[in-house]
Amino acid sequence: MPRVAIIGLGLIGGSIGLALKRAGLESLEIAGHDNEWGVAAKAKKCGAIDVEERHPTLAVEGAAIVVIATPISKVPAVFEDIAPALGENAVVTDTASTKRDIVRIAQKALPEGVHFVGGHPIAGKETSGIDAADAALFDGRPWAVTPSVHASERAIQTVENLIQLLGAQPVLIDADEHDAYMAAVSHLPLVAATALFSLVRESQGWAELGSLAGPGFRDTTRLASTDPGLSHDIALTNRENLLHWLDRYIEELRRYRGLIADADAQERLLEVFVRAQTERDIFVEHPPERPRPEVHRDDLTPGERMASLFTGEYVIRRRKDIEKLMQERENPRRGER
Amino acid sequence: MPRVAIIGLGLIGGSIGLALKRAGLESLEIAGHDNEWGVAAKAKKCGAIDVEERHPTLAVEGAAIVVIATPISKVPAVFEDIAPALGENAVVTDTASTKRDIVRIAQKALPEGVHFVGGHPIAGKETSGIDAADAALFDGRPWAVTPSVHASERAIQTVENLIQLLGAQPVLIDADEHDAYMAAVSHLPLVAATALFSLVRESQGWAELGSLAGPGFRDTTRLASTDPGLSHDIALTNRENLLHWLDRYIEELRRYRGLIADADAQERLLEVFVRAQTERDIFVEHPPERPRPEVHRDDLTPGERMASLFTGEYVIRRRKDIEKLMQERENPRRGER
Repeated sequence: MPRVAIIGLGLIGGSIGLALKRAGLESLEIAGHDNEWGVAAKAKKCGAIDVEERHPTLAVEGAAIVVIATPISKVPAVFEDIAPALGENAVVTDTASTKRDIVRIAQKALPEGVHFVGGHPIAGKETSGIDAADAALFDGRPWAVTPSVHASERAIQTVENLIQLLGAQPVLIDADEHDAYMAAVSHLPLVAATALFSLVRESQGWAELGSLAGPGFRDTTRLASTDPGLSHDIALTNRENLLHWLDRYIEELRRYRGLIADADAQERLLEVFVRAQTERDIFVEHPPERPRPEVHRDDLTPGERMASLFTGEYVIRRRKDIEKLMQERENPRRGER
Repeated sequence: MPRVAIIGLGLIGGSIGLALKRAGLESLEIAGHDNEWGVAAKAKKCGAIDVEERHPTLAVEGAAIVVIATPISKVPAVFEDIAPALGENAVVTDTASTKRDIVRIAQKALPEGVHFVGGHPIAGKETSGIDAADAALFDGRPWAVTPSVHASERAIQTVENLIQLLGAQPVLIDADEHDAYMAAVSHLPLVAATALFSLVRESQGWAELGSLAGPGFRDTTRLASTDPGLSHDIALTNRENLLHWLDRYIEELRRYRGLIADADAQERLLEVFVRAQTERDIFVEHPPERPRPEVHRDDLTPGERMASLFTGEYVIRRRKDIEKLMQERENPRRGER
């Protein structure tokens, strides 16, 4: 029976299992491992996996696809653990929020003949753990795909197929660009929200401040509730990009400060607010478009889906994108800095 | 028939009308005015008001309670307009997001014998206007009450009764303190969110950045969609407090920057993330408590509710709070700076 292995069964790993089950593939076995006691049993009970394995090595044995959904900082150790047990032509992917380091480490740690294609589902929740797992977590969300230089086109297609089966939209992107972009739209907001919360929380008037805080404060600081291990891993593995965007943010706040303080700048200040509101409303109504896959999985029978996952029969016909990406990676240029 | 007048029928004014109707008072007339053509007619159609008046003067004539729910910058002009038409002992309140200037202007602009008790419902939505009005908008939300020095205790109680009828919890507070606190939990988040959005939106990589932005970016920047007139009014009328908190925020971001950049500070950085997450989870689960009213409106018949609104029979028995507030206002001290 074809086998998919999921290493790490928290919110993301658990949701991948549930979403894969929801896709209704014929005779697929999902093996799962989590190094925290009792988690894999829970995952099995809630139907996210079929088989519970006590060691990553056992989970990946005979698996055509391996998904590593542990915290970022644990991924290198998982590579070491599973490397000897991976079969020829196995496709390995992950779900870490930063990609440059992971892809580089994978290239060194995984044996030849194994194809690493990094992944990052741009989805999440305030809650974490297997109890929060949700088959619909990835529906309609972008999912970055960052292949290693050794990954075959077929392996990339396999991962893209998997992502579509989970309900998400694969977005092929260079790992360095991914990290540069995510620093702006994910990691800077994380630090901005956390700093805002800690500033207000640690101030002397907290009892009064907290009792008067409304939904605006709650939303703006939501990311301060991110798992602290994840926040720290992100800061460690995307440091340069994050510092760059932090500096730009401090600069932007100074610009606002200048406009607010200057009685003669009130018209400009109003313009700044008008522009931000207008542009954000446009963003919410019509976010910049992502390339959409041409084939809808709803057109396929469960059997066809199964076949497509492993044989790449129903691939997203994006050879041009892939070729372009490969060329770019040979002549690397950075994302916007 | 007892009359309440609402001047300004946007999201807040319209929701006040709907919530007042929901309270099921006997034979209360709600008169409404909005200076934008067609808005009062809409408010009448959706049941937020009973009577549509073409001029604020006409709306407040014979009204026991007047609620001014216009933008902050329009409130002084409304004071001028309605001053000659207000009856002896009329209670005037407002809903502006900043209170110090409004209370000072009210003290000068309104005639003797009229009682001004400022108000600020700490509730809102991303959308605005009468079409977004919602009877449940204020349910369970705090509503700041900032009396002028001339307001009688009875007038304060009337406004607190009104607020409870609307489903909210009155929080008696000095106007200066209100503005100092709101700068931290509302106005700084507004500027932080707007600056974050404008920084990313105006950067060259927006097409890619915007397409990869997830729910975290959306939530953290939600306040950038605030009505720009309101944002500007807030910056104008709470400038000093806002600049103070902006400076502290920039300082806090620099502290994070230092920790992220310093390879030797990683343990401290992790601690900072752990503390922020823990404290925010506590905040979400158990926000600092507000003093709760002792009487629940559900215990009262519609007739009793009606009586209570105008006679103060079911008042929140918080004389001590009020006396303390009055004393503090005679010996003013600033909120936490």
